[in-house]
Amino acid sequence: MNTLTIPEKLQQLRRHMQTARIDAFIVMSADPHMSEYLPEHWKIRQWLTGFSGSVGTIVVTQDFAGLWVDGRYWVQAEQQLRNTGFKLQKLSSDASSTHLAWLGHHLNPHAVIAVNGQTISVQQFELLQQLAEKHQLQIQTGLDFIADLWQDRPALPLQPITLMAEGLNAFSRRQKIAIIRQRLKDRQIDGHFISSLDDIAWLLNSRGSDVDYNPVFLAHLYLNARQIVLFVDAAKMNTALRQKFRQDGIEIQPYEASTQFLSQLSDRTVLIDPAKVSILHQQSIAAQISVQHDINPATLLKSCKAPAEIAHIRNAMISDGVALCHFFHWLETALKNGENISELSIDEKITAFRAQQYGFTGPSFATIAGFNANGALPHYRATRTHYQMIQGDGLLLIDSGGQYVDGTTDITRVVAVGIPSAEQKRDYTLVLKCHIALATTVYPEGLAAPLLDAIARHTLWQQGLDYRHGTGHGVGYALNVHEGPQVLSYYAPITPYSGLREGMIISNEPGLYHEGQYGIRIENLMVNRLKQTEHKNYGDFLEFETLTLCPIHQECIVSDLLNPAEIQWLNAYHQMVRERLSPHLQGEVLQWLMTQTRPLS
Amino acid sequence: MNTLTIPEKLQQLRRHMQTARIDAFIVMSADPHMSEYLPEHWKIRQWLTGFSGSVGTIVVTQDFAGLWVDGRYWVQAEQQLRNTGFKLQKLSSDASSTHLAWLGHHLNPHAVIAVNGQTISVQQFELLQQLAEKHQLQIQTGLDFIADLWQDRPALPLQPITLMAEGLNAFSRRQKIAIIRQRLKDRQIDGHFISSLDDIAWLLNSRGSDVDYNPVFLAHLYLNARQIVLFVDAAKMNTALRQKFRQDGIEIQPYEASTQFLSQLSDRTVLIDPAKVSILHQQSIAAQISVQHDINPATLLKSCKAPAEIAHIRNAMISDGVALCHFFHWLETALKNGENISELSIDEKITAFRAQQYGFTGPSFATIAGFNANGALPHYRATRTHYQMIQGDGLLLIDSGGQYVDGTTDITRVVAVGIPSAEQKRDYTLVLKCHIALATTVYPEGLAAPLLDAIARHTLWQQGLDYRHGTGHGVGYALNVHEGPQVLSYYAPITPYSGLREGMIISNEPGLYHEGQYGIRIENLMVNRLKQTEHKNYGDFLEFETLTLCPIHQECIVSDLLNPAEIQWLNAYHQMVRERLSPHLQGEVLQWLMTQTRPLS
Repeated sequence: MNTLTIPEKLQQLRRHMQTARIDAFIVMSADPHMSEYLPEHWKIRQWLTGFSGSVGTIVVTQDFAGLWVDGRYWVQAEQQLRNTGFKLQKLSSDASSTHLAWLGHHLNPHAVIAVNGQTISVQQFELLQQLAEKHQLQIQTGLDFIADLWQDRPALPLQPITLMAEGLNAFSRRQKIAIIRQRLKDRQIDGHFISSLDDIAWLLNSRGSDVDYNPVFLAHLYLNARQIVLFVDAAKMNTALRQKFRQDGIEIQPYEASTQFLSQLSDRTVLIDPAKVSILHQQSIAAQISVQHDINPATLLKSCKAPAEIAHIRNAMISDGVALCHFFHWLETALKNGENISELSIDEKITAFRAQQYGFTGPSFATIAGFNANGALPHYRATRTHYQMIQGDGLLLIDSGGQYVDGTTDITRVVAVGIPSAEQKRDYTLVLKCHIALATTVYPEGLAAPLLDAIARHTLWQQGLDYRHGTGHGVGYALNVHEGPQVLSYYAPITPYSGLREGMIISNEPGLYHEGQYGIRIENLMVNRLKQTEHKNYGDFLEFETLTLCPIHQECIVSDLLNPAEIQWLNAYHQMVRERLSPHLQGEVLQWLMTQTRPLS
Repeated sequence: MNTLTIPEKLQQLRRHMQTARIDAFIVMSADPHMSEYLPEHWKIRQWLTGFSGSVGTIVVTQDFAGLWVDGRYWVQAEQQLRNTGFKLQKLSSDASSTHLAWLGHHLNPHAVIAVNGQTISVQQFELLQQLAEKHQLQIQTGLDFIADLWQDRPALPLQPITLMAEGLNAFSRRQKIAIIRQRLKDRQIDGHFISSLDDIAWLLNSRGSDVDYNPVFLAHLYLNARQIVLFVDAAKMNTALRQKFRQDGIEIQPYEASTQFLSQLSDRTVLIDPAKVSILHQQSIAAQISVQHDINPATLLKSCKAPAEIAHIRNAMISDGVALCHFFHWLETALKNGENISELSIDEKITAFRAQQYGFTGPSFATIAGFNANGALPHYRATRTHYQMIQGDGLLLIDSGGQYVDGTTDITRVVAVGIPSAEQKRDYTLVLKCHIALATTVYPEGLAAPLLDAIARHTLWQQGLDYRHGTGHGVGYALNVHEGPQVLSYYAPITPYSGLREGMIISNEPGLYHEGQYGIRIENLMVNRLKQTEHKNYGDFLEFETLTLCPIHQECIVSDLLNPAEIQWLNAYHQMVRERLSPHLQGEVLQWLMTQTRPLS
């Protein structure tokens, strides 16, 4: 089997397009589940262009081939696209910078666009359709040129599905199914189709390992009042699992059978989440059926963790905290001893320490270890060909997380290497103030999460400073580290599902980045809990409980910039970290913990 | 002429409905301009039910008559509707509490609803239409039973239109018209129809007095690249004004001619603001014309005041501040002397002191003077039959404002009467902290105003306290005291037009209300201005400049609850008030100002 070069792939694609009379071909960074992490099989954009970033959109015509990527990847894409025939298209917040704008501008009326209907969500397809109507373009969703072109394409993963241990979930499969059925009934909706893998894993109290970092398995699911059908490759299930599913009334059909099943439905109304279902699946639903668009009920239910689940997460945080103490103690010692440490060794070491902990199943995302200027790139990742040694003075930003059977973690700490500058210390303290402001705030139950962002950013805004990423994202329970619907970011749209509810887990990760110099981010996970208040006439209030257990490095704190309440929060946090972690540590590492959690006065 | 009782009006209305085969008749609190204040002619709801609150919706069928009002008016409506045949319908935030929900629930399929198309906006009509489609109802907009029933109905007002003095506006009529034309051209829209009275007054640099409090005149306006037509009663204009308008290319047509004009348009696309134009006007537009819905460009332009206009507003604030010093000095003296003062005398006195100032044309809204429990009703208004004497101990809340030729004011202060309690002092200080937090905040240019509300409420939320009204509203320039598009309230929807821009004026009015006991609100007006920052990589930032000039009463401040930065703000504010007002005051009033603006330490 000979492997094609990128220009050859492009040439062959254009030949296919010509034959099929297609004027423009679009490739989205997506699979039929609209997942964040794709199986190798669906990494079409990477195969076709060589660009390995997490997101990008391709448009190919006979005389143009472009890849649209956002600001974090411009440098990388520029390098990787060299001599491929693909041109970097810089995506910004400006609507005119999108591939849709390009199509509207460059295609002639009646031109035909092809996009694989499996890899575009209903929502994104509707945007494309609006464009097509405006410019009198046609769209074809049924062609799959890549299937013909990609000879050595990896098969879909067949990793086993596992049941979560008894006691880890507050609700059984049957209970969850019954709740969703009741929600549908309340809304007079007959059936519901789900493609989002974390929603399916949550509903079935099961996990998988088909993709990187997210413990999910490839499947679709349909349920109505009588039936619940899981579309999944049977090879992923052992007999015990099959039997459990059967006992709960879950019928298994082949993974590929979902579209045909949808075409033969006898339900009158079907609910789908337009952001989480492919247009191919919606198009498969028989025409006489009324399709209702809304968020998956499972997404809302799974975002609020039950008290028993939060108790498990607190345990996972102890495991993670113990690993982190070992890691940071190692790092400090190694730096002191002048060992050769690179950004890559950080990644290896932190994962190795986590792997020694109970229930660790893998990192929850690719570790970010960025020294000085690399730390100023919020989505930086060191690679085998491109990394920095940790030497000289500066700040080392480490953002990492673990998947445990009883919880998902995500933490960022910044370590001073050598002698940090006065500016670095001041900036570190400003970011810490932002972190504490959010950690200690109280807010009305149901407040849209973006409305809290000004609390977090206030200290930086007062100085004319800001950071260009969200302050917080939802986090799953032994599931995806990025989980909706809540997003704590002032530029996130506010929807009916933006409200903060009891039991939601959210990250608290303000930062500050000086391009070419250094970056700072301090991140803990927190859970929303009810605040007992004296007054009863003003509704319910929530507050945050910080869950992450790891000292916040104090070398860079300028204590004069902290007010007494901030110092009190920091000391109380460190006392909790010490109390929960010290029983699990000994010797030098215990000593390191005691030093790191000493009260600041 | 004999005047009908309310039951008689209802009986006659039902007879008309029966003849016309109408099953349900709706009356909205609106006129053809969707104004906040209606001319007497359009106070149909008040005429038909006797309910005198500012807002309410009527539904009448053959066996039901209901008035939907929100929580502030439940007590008043209960009293005023007694023995009228109308039932109070309590409107809450719950969608099932609306008149639309009632109609959906009670009308049979194919029932016919009548609503006067002149008094319902396109936006509200669309909601009604959605309901009608869902429940197979019909809507008629062309019937006007009230015109037949209301024998002694007041005519439309004919107050004169006046031109604003030269120099008060930063842009001439011609310039404003040219800017709007350019905006239409940029969007490839031919024509634009405006019904909102403040937008018309702003565009024409003219003012009127057709309704209470808002210095506007009844008119509609149409403009395209060639024509600008003002639909207005010619009796409102003197020869000089007509000539000025003619010079600027403004054509005058009768007020009633707007719908016929729209039916004969030759433009292909017309822009209207669906929240600010009646469905009757939209329906008048010829069918082949494409109607585009969006906010009026004038609304966006007028919200950002030019530096020269802000300079005039600062002058108006001096006039208002001088009047307020006289008023508060009088109040303090009168209370000290044991004079008989009622909530009503407050209203009379404050207006009398303002009337002595240059350029005062009237109050900018109905004065709210509420003592103790009355202060806890955010929209309380004392009436001749229902008011409280100011005696004993407690808090007196006074919210008032003035219209001046060079600015519009709106201010709330709380005065301690007798000896305030420790709780009252603590609450007053908490509200002051909220006020200062918002006054001193810095935020990215264009930030949606609701995203700042957490900054303002933070102190109260930490205590489990809140207030059920917005923190800030836009304010016009010698125009409406409530002006869009900006609203600073965490429960306001965020739209593409929610962003804070340089030159916008907004109120800062946090509060706290203990039902049955007392209410606190501290309100100043502020203008958004550019903040000079050291850093250039993080975009532009805005900050607020406080415009209102009047001491903030210090009797209730618990200084231990204020931090040094808050005390510094208060002292700096009082120093500014003293510097700007003292040159205009003498004797005892000057002495009062000096005492009131003494630094707090």
